[in-house]
Amino acid sequence: MSAEIIPVPKGFSFAVACAGFKYQGRDDLALIVSDRPAAAAGVFTRNLFQAAPVVVAAEALKASQTARALMVNAGQANACTGREGIVNCRETLKLTAKAVGLAAEEVLPASTGVIGAQLKMDAWKNALPQLAASLGKAGPIEAAKAIVTTDTFPKMAWGTVSLDGKEARILGMAKGAGMICPDMATLIGLIVTDAEVDPVWWREALGQAVDQSFNSITVDGDTSTNDTVLALANGASGLAIKTKEARLALAGALTEICQALAFMIVQDAEGGTKILRIQVSGAEDNLQAEHAARAVGHSPLVKTAFFGEDANWGRIVAALGRSGAEFDPDKASVAIGGITVFTEGKPIAGDLDSLLAPHMRRKEISVSINLGKGPGEYVLLASDLTHEYVSINADYRS
Amino acid sequence: MSAEIIPVPKGFSFAVACAGFKYQGRDDLALIVSDRPAAAAGVFTRNLFQAAPVVVAAEALKASQTARALMVNAGQANACTGREGIVNCRETLKLTAKAVGLAAEEVLPASTGVIGAQLKMDAWKNALPQLAASLGKAGPIEAAKAIVTTDTFPKMAWGTVSLDGKEARILGMAKGAGMICPDMATLIGLIVTDAEVDPVWWREALGQAVDQSFNSITVDGDTSTNDTVLALANGASGLAIKTKEARLALAGALTEICQALAFMIVQDAEGGTKILRIQVSGAEDNLQAEHAARAVGHSPLVKTAFFGEDANWGRIVAALGRSGAEFDPDKASVAIGGITVFTEGKPIAGDLDSLLAPHMRRKEISVSINLGKGPGEYVLLASDLTHEYVSINADYRS
Repeated sequence: MSAEIIPVPKGFSFAVACAGFKYQGRDDLALIVSDRPAAAAGVFTRNLFQAAPVVVAAEALKASQTARALMVNAGQANACTGREGIVNCRETLKLTAKAVGLAAEEVLPASTGVIGAQLKMDAWKNALPQLAASLGKAGPIEAAKAIVTTDTFPKMAWGTVSLDGKEARILGMAKGAGMICPDMATLIGLIVTDAEVDPVWWREALGQAVDQSFNSITVDGDTSTNDTVLALANGASGLAIKTKEARLALAGALTEICQALAFMIVQDAEGGTKILRIQVSGAEDNLQAEHAARAVGHSPLVKTAFFGEDANWGRIVAALGRSGAEFDPDKASVAIGGITVFTEGKPIAGDLDSLLAPHMRRKEISVSINLGKGPGEYVLLASDLTHEYVSINADYRS
Repeated sequence: MSAEIIPVPKGFSFAVACAGFKYQGRDDLALIVSDRPAAAAGVFTRNLFQAAPVVVAAEALKASQTARALMVNAGQANACTGREGIVNCRETLKLTAKAVGLAAEEVLPASTGVIGAQLKMDAWKNALPQLAASLGKAGPIEAAKAIVTTDTFPKMAWGTVSLDGKEARILGMAKGAGMICPDMATLIGLIVTDAEVDPVWWREALGQAVDQSFNSITVDGDTSTNDTVLALANGASGLAIKTKEARLALAGALTEICQALAFMIVQDAEGGTKILRIQVSGAEDNLQAEHAARAVGHSPLVKTAFFGEDANWGRIVAALGRSGAEFDPDKASVAIGGITVFTEGKPIAGDLDSLLAPHMRRKEISVSINLGKGPGEYVLLASDLTHEYVSINADYRS
């Protein structure tokens, strides 16, 4: 993955700095600047406790359809910081905007890190000359690295959309490894494209893409105070997305990029060794399918069994039975790695453990559940639960 | 804890046998027999997948207000075993009843263990002579030991009720250490008393006691296919529970015993090192308080933090914010060990970690949450999440 082969959307520049918010010896502040106003969209956590940058970014998106820059810091969440946290967030926007020649209201913030501490404003101020100097010199990889916390690798995905001889580029990056669940959790996703879009449609498209990606993964069932996905479309490519066909193409690329990033987040789940692709069909409706998938994907007993490479279908069945989804237990079936293990109220005959052993050793394992009731379906990506997850999270702040 | 000091309810005998369902060299089959018909009550899992003994016991309770015996085996759940599982369950009742001179329909079954395998009927038949021979020779401690699976200690609690110069004894035992959640989970509770009761009232009293005890604990959020609490009241003491005062006294004793057993289950949580007493008040109603308490008690991030003795209130707050309970984040407060750590939207000033360190080292830690909204309240006991939980459950079947 080198900067040369990544099709960076035109008109976007990147900057990073090493501010020392929490981490030493690495960049922890990133800025992405568009050379012109860009249609701006955002999706945020539904947690009642919204971090200051979530409140501020949501307000900015309400006030304006466009923005010029995305600013992300790692190590300090600026969540549960009260009025002072909001004031500090606005101040960082003002200072950062000034350092690169923008207005504060043109910059959208996002933060990730430990909850409850006030931002280190001195560290921020000290880092700004470095940030400004790096603008245009840093590339997307440096930015993707600067926004991580407990992630073990930076997460990027990209694509292009070609129509009528013109091409637009779309690039995404994300951070997230724990506190990942229903409503995106401690996840930050940044997407930029040089396509030209209608701002209202762009917001709809982002909402739909997030539902099918970041909102369909779980590491630990915990949603965070800081979940944020921001997307800018600046039109610098000259490709205007106006027709239904063009919208489908760009929305498709956007969704694929969000899904690729979401997959990487589960792949990088704190301490995770496996990715479970839980596909529920035959539910009464999609919501019941989602309940069933989440009951399985959140079950510590299921997650530890997969970590132990134990094809313990009984725990999957027990989770389905308490999920709240309505179905006839005798009509439900469960397959692991494509092999039906449970149907008509009981396991299939034979030495299931031997049959499933090669599948259980894989890194990605599919769990297909048919509830035998209706047309509802849902797909959830989940991680396993390991000793390392416990170590990382029993020890996070020290 | 010796049999002599336990006030065993009159008219009850105990039997155990070593059948080898899964474990070797220990008793794994227990029988409690009343010398006369006893008012019988039961509370069962709400999981859609109900184990065969759950189905059979529930049917028996529907058919008759009384029973003579409780029969429990450990190691095989007889869950997800289809029609054959039901047939096997009925056969074990018939064989066991015959061995001790009862009718099959007078015996209530309960099973715990691995899901999906058919009962080892030969092991059962071979064990029956031993079971019959031990009747009256074994005591309640032996029975409590025979019903455990991954438990590290047998769980018993007892009490007496005295009224008008007469005394009734009440004795409970339970097993359960994992798959413990909302609806009792892999939990078996057996309660016997020599009080004389109205069978209809006895069932109500058991339901209320279970709600305030076994249904208010969580280890891992997983409910099982086999959860069963059975209670017999045989009247052998001569103390008839008829007045309101008498009912309050016996219901109180019953609830206390269930709560003591529930506490022991969390104490013995698989791999657990701490008991969190999560008290939510100020919710809009009791149900919202329960949602809030469960979001905190189920959060892997909260549970690992307590394992690490890290007073990470931010994770508690984040869990509350996604719990579904409705409240104003600025009016909520959180106290750990009686010390308020979060109020008015932000943590209190000062070195919280040092202040809380002695509390975090305790085995029992109280977490008090006030949502500042209404009169709703709920108390949940939860375990922490540890390396050992992962080891036990990644490895359970091997």
